[in-house]
Amino acid sequence: MAIFKQLFDEPTSTFTYLIADEQTKSALLIDPVHEQFDRDMSVLAELGLTLKYVLETHVHADHITGGGRLRHATSAEFVAGKGTGLDCADRLIANGETIQMDSISIHALATPGHTDGCTSYRWEDRLFTGDTILIDACGRTDFQQGSPESLYRSIQQLLAFPDETLIYPGHDYNGKRVSSVGQEQTINPYIAGLDLAAFVAKMQALNLPKPHRIDVAVPANVLCGGAAAPRVPGETEAA
Amino acid sequence: MAIFKQLFDEPTSTFTYLIADEQTKSALLIDPVHEQFDRDMSVLAELGLTLKYVLETHVHADHITGGGRLRHATSAEFVAGKGTGLDCADRLIANGETIQMDSISIHALATPGHTDGCTSYRWEDRLFTGDTILIDACGRTDFQQGSPESLYRSIQQLLAFPDETLIYPGHDYNGKRVSSVGQEQTINPYIAGLDLAAFVAKMQALNLPKPHRIDVAVPANVLCGGAAAPRVPGETEAA
Repeated sequence: MAIFKQLFDEPTSTFTYLIADEQTKSALLIDPVHEQFDRDMSVLAELGLTLKYVLETHVHADHITGGGRLRHATSAEFVAGKGTGLDCADRLIANGETIQMDSISIHALATPGHTDGCTSYRWEDRLFTGDTILIDACGRTDFQQGSPESLYRSIQQLLAFPDETLIYPGHDYNGKRVSSVGQEQTINPYIAGLDLAAFVAKMQALNLPKPHRIDVAVPANVLCGGAAAPRVPGETEAA
Repeated sequence: MAIFKQLFDEPTSTFTYLIADEQTKSALLIDPVHEQFDRDMSVLAELGLTLKYVLETHVHADHITGGGRLRHATSAEFVAGKGTGLDCADRLIANGETIQMDSISIHALATPGHTDGCTSYRWEDRLFTGDTILIDACGRTDFQQGSPESLYRSIQQLLAFPDETLIYPGHDYNGKRVSSVGQEQTINPYIAGLDLAAFVAKMQALNLPKPHRIDVAVPANVLCGGAAAPRVPGETEAA
């Protein structure tokens, strides 16, 4: 059996996921947030867990990863997608590679498009999609080597899993928490009925404002969050 | 490991759930639909499964259960909640009782309110809520001994599970397929911020039309769908 928790950072609407082996107490976190270090350490302590891995879905532009502080405070390895090229990571994971943490198998899927290093992770029938698929939305493609063509292909790759496969996104701004491949295929307005050309046109027409924190978050995140990256003042914004 | 499938009947927007033990090939169906008998038998055959149980969440007013045809075609037992009082069932399951099908444990939760015999089923961290909780909605309470007070208490009982607990409803009319306790608690307009009095007032003000098929569906369903219950002409309608 496994422990699974979905945590939420209100100011940036970011989901952090905790997966742990109930027997061995080994744990991993997907996309922890710098400002939630105390919360994450408390949850680990309450459940008697040992943090073994921090997995990043990508180099975030809206928040600083908690991975820096967490790996300095624990013995956790910092894992990110090969496409991020992060020199500071303990492991750069390639498409198709697996992290085996006792009974927990996490499979990496390179899903570039929102950024060129975006990686999704699959655990059993659950996909952690970062900003590749959001519920009823998807990540933007207008900075950090974003590419609507790549994102389209990455989304299709994730939609190839069975309809029942659960989708746990990196963010949600409207209170939604979980979806499935079948649901996104049916009603996500960035997916349902759009071919490559229509998707690219839709993404290119978005004309979104620059994320407020990008100039703070990206420099910190290319250093894996550092050990004591600066606190960012709370302000809600789009992914 | 388990096999899990979410099937959909378009004319009535009804979800049918298949859960099976991958090793022993024993299977159960939650809320099969009479007209989908051929689909259900095909899915079972394709996966090499033996149907052991049909579980009903309640006596449906919008469609005839497929349980009648399925138990005549297989050796499956027909299971419904004790509160339904269905003489035709092989087993009437009470709150807190379990169905153990090889490695699969299904826990029954009496959740009256939409009807007096409504039962939800829990498998691991997944709740099959029938019409007790729908995504962003809930079942109506204006017929079949419906009671908004009972439904409120039943909803609260389901929301007491951890936030991550998945909610698989009996219907969805808008393409949604899965939610969680945390999501429904946050954004379901029939749940979020409503106390008992506000919920009862909201339900009493709904003033919904009578379901088109109630006069055909309920008499067939109190006979557990019979062996060859009449086919109902296709017409979409609210739960």
